[in-house]
Amino acid sequence: MPEPKLVPDDIAERTLMLGLCNELLGQNGLVWCRRLMVMQPTMIDPDSQPEEVRNFLTFFATKYHYDAAQAEGAAARVVSILNALSAQLAAQKTKGSKYLIGDQLTALDIYWSTAAAILDPLPHNMCPMPDNFREFYSTVGPDIEAALDTKLLAHRDFIYENYLTLPLLM
Amino acid sequence: MPEPKLVPDDIAERTLMLGLCNELLGQNGLVWCRRLMVMQPTMIDPDSQPEEVRNFLTFFATKYHYDAAQAEGAAARVVSILNALSAQLAAQKTKGSKYLIGDQLTALDIYWSTAAAILDPLPHNMCPMPDNFREFYSTVGPDIEAALDTKLLAHRDFIYENYLTLPLLM
Repeated sequence: MPEPKLVPDDIAERTLMLGLCNELLGQNGLVWCRRLMVMQPTMIDPDSQPEEVRNFLTFFATKYHYDAAQAEGAAARVVSILNALSAQLAAQKTKGSKYLIGDQLTALDIYWSTAAAILDPLPHNMCPMPDNFREFYSTVGPDIEAALDTKLLAHRDFIYENYLTLPLLM
Repeated sequence: MPEPKLVPDDIAERTLMLGLCNELLGQNGLVWCRRLMVMQPTMIDPDSQPEEVRNFLTFFATKYHYDAAQAEGAAARVVSILNALSAQLAAQKTKGSKYLIGDQLTALDIYWSTAAAILDPLPHNMCPMPDNFREFYSTVGPDIEAALDTKLLAHRDFIYENYLTLPLLM
């Protein structure tokens, strides 16, 4: 078993943790839905992007199983996942914990912190990426912007400062 | 999306469902732990089995990453997962639901019903398998036997009767 252990021993904590990891990284999860959102304008109107970007996004649309109906619901799905994470973080704070699950670091803290790059990338010196990626990732629309709890972003910062290494290379 | 939909739309239900599916089928989950238990006697004392069975189990021990320490804790892990499923089924009954999650069939009902074969195989006419497999699968030891809630087995029967096809071919 790797140390430190990133999967809780307690079955209720582990069940919730894996379930929320799936919401972040699984099929139709937060990262999946954000990718659909990035592709959507190009898939609706291919001429809205320069040829190079269009070719790139069309390639990824195939790779990532772009689906127009799913793309339509993607922002709402991301909002519901952010709300669930915010509620979990708030519940944990009430219990006196600094972590998303239990009282120590788990995979969920790391997954959230890294997945947040597709919503609110860290500044260039901490997380370098091409300008168009930064624009794609930062353009989340009003609903997600409203749901993007500053406490969730502060939690990301806390995890990077204490457990991860910057710069984050995508 | 396949119909009927086997993944709930509600995020709390979906999170719990995926977390419990992981407990059944994921790494160090119920099926994983039962496999370790089946191999354990042979791994501890290779001469306890006839050569053919020994070769077969040794092959699977490699394939399934047999680990002596995990095998030692396997029965307790299975018990904790069965207890969590029993508690979930009881909570659902209190809410008036016949299913493990929400108020309709989900993947978890199907996963539980099929995974139960490694604890309490259905009779030969419903689930044919070689006799030594039947013995391996049925030999769960006293702790798991005590934790194997008859209501969970009745739930398996309900799911087979209404949604699945018998005989179950392993």
